[in-house]
Amino acid sequence: MSSSLNAHLVEEADSRISNLIHKTPILTSSTLDEICAKKLYFKCENFQKTGSFKIRGFLNAILKAKESGHLKGVITMSAGNGGQSLAYSASKVGVPSIVAVPETVSITKADAIVAYGAELQRCPPNITILEETCEKLAKDLGYYYVDPHSDYEVMAGHGTVVKEFLEQAPDLDALLVQVGGGGLIAGVAKYVAEVNPKIKVFCIEPEGKDLQSSLNAQVPLWEDTSKMLNTIADGLMVQRVTEQSFQVINECCQKRTFSVNNQEISNAMLLIMQRLKVVIEPSAALGLAAVLKYREELKDCHKIGIILTGGNADLNKLPF
Amino acid sequence: MSSSLNAHLVEEADSRISNLIHKTPILTSSTLDEICAKKLYFKCENFQKTGSFKIRGFLNAILKAKESGHLKGVITMSAGNGGQSLAYSASKVGVPSIVAVPETVSITKADAIVAYGAELQRCPPNITILEETCEKLAKDLGYYYVDPHSDYEVMAGHGTVVKEFLEQAPDLDALLVQVGGGGLIAGVAKYVAEVNPKIKVFCIEPEGKDLQSSLNAQVPLWEDTSKMLNTIADGLMVQRVTEQSFQVINECCQKRTFSVNNQEISNAMLLIMQRLKVVIEPSAALGLAAVLKYREELKDCHKIGIILTGGNADLNKLPF
Repeated sequence: MSSSLNAHLVEEADSRISNLIHKTPILTSSTLDEICAKKLYFKCENFQKTGSFKIRGFLNAILKAKESGHLKGVITMSAGNGGQSLAYSASKVGVPSIVAVPETVSITKADAIVAYGAELQRCPPNITILEETCEKLAKDLGYYYVDPHSDYEVMAGHGTVVKEFLEQAPDLDALLVQVGGGGLIAGVAKYVAEVNPKIKVFCIEPEGKDLQSSLNAQVPLWEDTSKMLNTIADGLMVQRVTEQSFQVINECCQKRTFSVNNQEISNAMLLIMQRLKVVIEPSAALGLAAVLKYREELKDCHKIGIILTGGNADLNKLPF
Repeated sequence: MSSSLNAHLVEEADSRISNLIHKTPILTSSTLDEICAKKLYFKCENFQKTGSFKIRGFLNAILKAKESGHLKGVITMSAGNGGQSLAYSASKVGVPSIVAVPETVSITKADAIVAYGAELQRCPPNITILEETCEKLAKDLGYYYVDPHSDYEVMAGHGTVVKEFLEQAPDLDALLVQVGGGGLIAGVAKYVAEVNPKIKVFCIEPEGKDLQSSLNAQVPLWEDTSKMLNTIADGLMVQRVTEQSFQVINECCQKRTFSVNNQEISNAMLLIMQRLKVVIEPSAALGLAAVLKYREELKDCHKIGIILTGGNADLNKLPF
């Protein structure tokens, strides 16, 4: 695992993974632009391999570990996209994989992880227990534990999405990035801060996360680090941001964070599916939800980049 | 209106409209290929302007009419995509438009047609009455009646989708094309027969259309030409194929037609949305539904082209 995050690490990750993943397209919609009175650019990671951006970080971390020496197997904790990404990456590299899942995981998601070749380890739905399970299994089996929120190679891999994005849409004024454990925002914000610091990076969160209080205090204030949010954005349920990611956010992002509730996420998800004709999961809708809600505060940002982070929605249970 | 259909008319249509519409992408999915044991190419007309391929034919017909002399206004009959396409095309050309709709039209679709700038003319839900209304209004107002199923310029415009498709995926063995009134299949089949006759063009129909009997007899056998099918494929409800289109089908398509029911359409629609991550309407799912059902009969066709005809689904009422 690398000991710090920077744009060079993102560029290295890009060289490592770009031939193995999709260069996802940018979509635009004149109707959505009219509604928001902005020019919006949607980076379609819902079309990415395994259906989400997470393949970027996991594949990078696993390839890097493989380069660095003998790799016996890999393990991570996830209730969804991370697990699929780990399983897919491990199968490409040719090593076994284990995904620690909360026992509340949906059958669809568990099946998808298994279909990509991983073994499931069911645990009580508590992030601390999941982490401890991963650490213990990694130690016992000699596997590499890919920490989804604290591993700099994961963050750097996730950051490759913005390197691509800026090549495809070079004139952005702002990027709106959804925040869960913090792996994506860290990779994106660090890269942008070094490569094109004029672009403002805003954090978007599901209501209840309260990243704003921690940013105001400049230290993470979450007391119960295992708390999960009650949000339809099932990829963004963990409340706390890890220490590593928080430092990057504090250093590189706008001090003002935007918060959206379930109804706002659901409305934005429907609008994206109706207008862009792409399937996204609820977590991917936060960017548009924030533009719609915070238009006034974003009045100086005309060209806005939004990452459609994933497309693994349960189509039998859409929230609208 | 032109008096016959040929590949040259399609090429002329392409020169006329290609700068005004999207060149839609081809999507593929290794998972769908595995399921079907084929290589499938999906032409994404759900991303087309107004959300369906129909803009191609209507825009071509209206531009051609404009070239040919003074154009006072345009009229058509439609319960959906055709109406949106006419309205959009008319607004681009700068003439007024009227769409005769069955009074059973959904509010969503009626609103979409009005949003593109057309006036609605509500009629009893009977295709003969709709046609007669269009003919009368066209005569009274001096408007051009764009007949969606019999106008060769509409068919030629629709045929441009396959010109593009063959440029993007040149090695197809077969094309599976859904059949409603027959405008799309006519343009596609005629172009392929002239330009690349090795490619087999198969007709796919919603159950109950019974194109097969007419093809066996080599004459159209539908007695009640106003009959509508009970199908979830709301773009393909008219049972009969027009005389003009039937002649092309009889001359250029495979003699074997494929028929799929509502459950098969719904299953294929879900599979496409889950795997390709694109939003389609039920009518767009017929190609995959047919490949899944008729795999054995298609055993000599390895590379199959499918047109995702539109994306204007009612996302609050998905059929699965």
